[in-house]
Amino acid sequence: MLQGKVLVAQGGGPTAVINQSLVGVVLEARKFPQVEFVYGAAHGVSGIVNEDFLNLTQETSFNLEMVANTPSSALGSTRDKPDADYCREIFKVLKAHGIAYFFYIGGNDSSDTVRIVSEEARNAGYPLRCIHIPKTIDNDLVGNDHTPGFPSAARFVAQAFAGANLDNAALKGIYLAVVMGRHAGFLTAASALGRKFPDDGPHLIYLPERIFDTERFLTDVKLNYEKHGRCVIAVSEGIHDASGTSIITSLSAEVERDAHGNVQLSGTGALADLLCSEIKAKLGIKRVRGDTLGYLQRSFLGCVSDVDQREARQVGENAVQFAMTGSVDGSVAIKRTGDYSVKYELVSLESVAGKTRVMEDELISASGTDVTPAFHDYLRPLLGSNFPEVHRLSANKVAKILAQ
Amino acid sequence: MLQGKVLVAQGGGPTAVINQSLVGVVLEARKFPQVEFVYGAAHGVSGIVNEDFLNLTQETSFNLEMVANTPSSALGSTRDKPDADYCREIFKVLKAHGIAYFFYIGGNDSSDTVRIVSEEARNAGYPLRCIHIPKTIDNDLVGNDHTPGFPSAARFVAQAFAGANLDNAALKGIYLAVVMGRHAGFLTAASALGRKFPDDGPHLIYLPERIFDTERFLTDVKLNYEKHGRCVIAVSEGIHDASGTSIITSLSAEVERDAHGNVQLSGTGALADLLCSEIKAKLGIKRVRGDTLGYLQRSFLGCVSDVDQREARQVGENAVQFAMTGSVDGSVAIKRTGDYSVKYELVSLESVAGKTRVMEDELISASGTDVTPAFHDYLRPLLGSNFPEVHRLSANKVAKILAQ
Repeated sequence: MLQGKVLVAQGGGPTAVINQSLVGVVLEARKFPQVEFVYGAAHGVSGIVNEDFLNLTQETSFNLEMVANTPSSALGSTRDKPDADYCREIFKVLKAHGIAYFFYIGGNDSSDTVRIVSEEARNAGYPLRCIHIPKTIDNDLVGNDHTPGFPSAARFVAQAFAGANLDNAALKGIYLAVVMGRHAGFLTAASALGRKFPDDGPHLIYLPERIFDTERFLTDVKLNYEKHGRCVIAVSEGIHDASGTSIITSLSAEVERDAHGNVQLSGTGALADLLCSEIKAKLGIKRVRGDTLGYLQRSFLGCVSDVDQREARQVGENAVQFAMTGSVDGSVAIKRTGDYSVKYELVSLESVAGKTRVMEDELISASGTDVTPAFHDYLRPLLGSNFPEVHRLSANKVAKILAQ
Repeated sequence: MLQGKVLVAQGGGPTAVINQSLVGVVLEARKFPQVEFVYGAAHGVSGIVNEDFLNLTQETSFNLEMVANTPSSALGSTRDKPDADYCREIFKVLKAHGIAYFFYIGGNDSSDTVRIVSEEARNAGYPLRCIHIPKTIDNDLVGNDHTPGFPSAARFVAQAFAGANLDNAALKGIYLAVVMGRHAGFLTAASALGRKFPDDGPHLIYLPERIFDTERFLTDVKLNYEKHGRCVIAVSEGIHDASGTSIITSLSAEVERDAHGNVQLSGTGALADLLCSEIKAKLGIKRVRGDTLGYLQRSFLGCVSDVDQREARQVGENAVQFAMTGSVDGSVAIKRTGDYSVKYELVSLESVAGKTRVMEDELISASGTDVTPAFHDYLRPLLGSNFPEVHRLSANKVAKILAQ
């Protein structure tokens, strides 16, 4: 077992439970006598190269527990994607501070950083244990049944669509909402779990795993509108046409530029607005409303899956266990073992780094605009306890008098 | 006491607790022997003129309790704003069905409908008791301390900004979110209750009660960005310039039209996107993100204030009590009597109908971009129990080694 300091950092987009993993690492690492100090790097890898470290060795356990229940990255995060040179800088700092254990909580970019740093250390003959801890609301890490952060975001999306469906049933029309996930449609697909009654929306779900055809989309919407008198639609931000061009780009091509000469692409409401314009113009439906779930789906305070909380804690704890008792670097992965149970394994960094998982075919319906029962079976246990339920009146109609 | 049927309907935008009021009316009305039947009109006044009634007389109390906890309008709603002719149609149907008690749950438009129907009945010498039951997330009914639906929507907004602030602290930049409320800024102001630590966002709050000046806005944003390295901004959808022109219109004037020749106004993400474009272009800040809370703030399943639930139930119950024991038509109003306690009064329909309350001056800070402590005192008890809390690490910085 290596003697030295522990360094933990958080990278990429925050999640509702990423601090559970951080706290799992800190509390677990402090139990081991060979650990001299536990440092946290501010704002991920950028804090490492700037030596911006917090000393978490004496942070009270009570406050850590409070922080664990707080969403977003308590250490701060970064969008930096280190190349080989950047990773050499990281390694230089780790060495200078006598870091023996490096834990990086993040998505597939972060796992690639860990992979390169691990290689640097090996090449330099410096004893360093590097462990990647999974986190991403996109659920796009290969080798994992699912990733911490995804279940809570999925719960938010399901609750958002369950509510939006009720709103749309009360005031009929078209409701469309854009969900995060550029390459993987898991989060958009989670909208299906907001349904309860057979005619509940979302009636259509558009995933980046399937080619988006605007004409077919309009036909789908029209059919559902005729059937239900309304239509609720979930759309992934990553939808694209057959050539791979994202729909926001292809639709925006028809749209003019703003006062500063830029196409209105960056504004996060743009895709929903463009699709709503298409529906209004081509189908002539008046009440068309578009939302973009935006940052709420990963940051909203007070929507969390308890299963996700528990697992995020455990990937942090297990990362330390693997580091202290094992002799290889790697990435902690969640494997499903039963219905519902999981185990944690250490997989190679190479198997995760820089790879993107997308939704498996058996999770998407033949129509391409819905999910299968297998997806329901997959996601339901992840959403956690006390998912709010909706109910309807069951009363009979009263006979008309005047209209007879 | 009048003998006959009860008719209850729901109008305007749904809320998280509007079904509490509906269920309050139904359960309370069924206790009175002079009530022959309890009907619910589908989709508000449009269901009345179409005689689209549900018979709620035997709806099970258990199911009613389940529906009470379900957000959105279980009977369906409508955006119809009846004129005098429409109200005469309503009255004709009420008379034909032997309705003796008419309860309409809605905002100030709905109270105006109740006022006209009440007048019709009086002029026709038809014995009808008409009671308006308040509901609106905008909190813009005069004569009320606050309106049912607002506290839950305010809680959603506060939780959304509390989370967005944490996200923005982790990945720094500008975060701006647009909140509902065309004339009244209460809901936008609720974002302030998402703050805990002194440097928490929202750092700027723009309300429709104050004139929005784009140059001053940019200066405000710049100052806060320099101070905090980031800035979280809450913006009411109703902000307007000195001439009363809404900002979305004045900024869109610079923006071109879409493929169908329409200015992109209707898309709900437009205002956030326009303001973000301004910040990017004029301040040269790279990471600028805009969200529009959209329908989530009134429909999200699973974010409700228990105080709001209770009061929404009680305005429904009290409406029936006033109708059965009193001899005048009116609107139920919530009056604050202590810290925190309320009572329910019946006020005249004329005093509420068609009027709009906006934020009182003492609730808005002198800067015009924040709220006062009085607003905190006003809103805090309404948000209900178990508002989620956020926590921070308190660890010390580690001394740098390489950068010395």
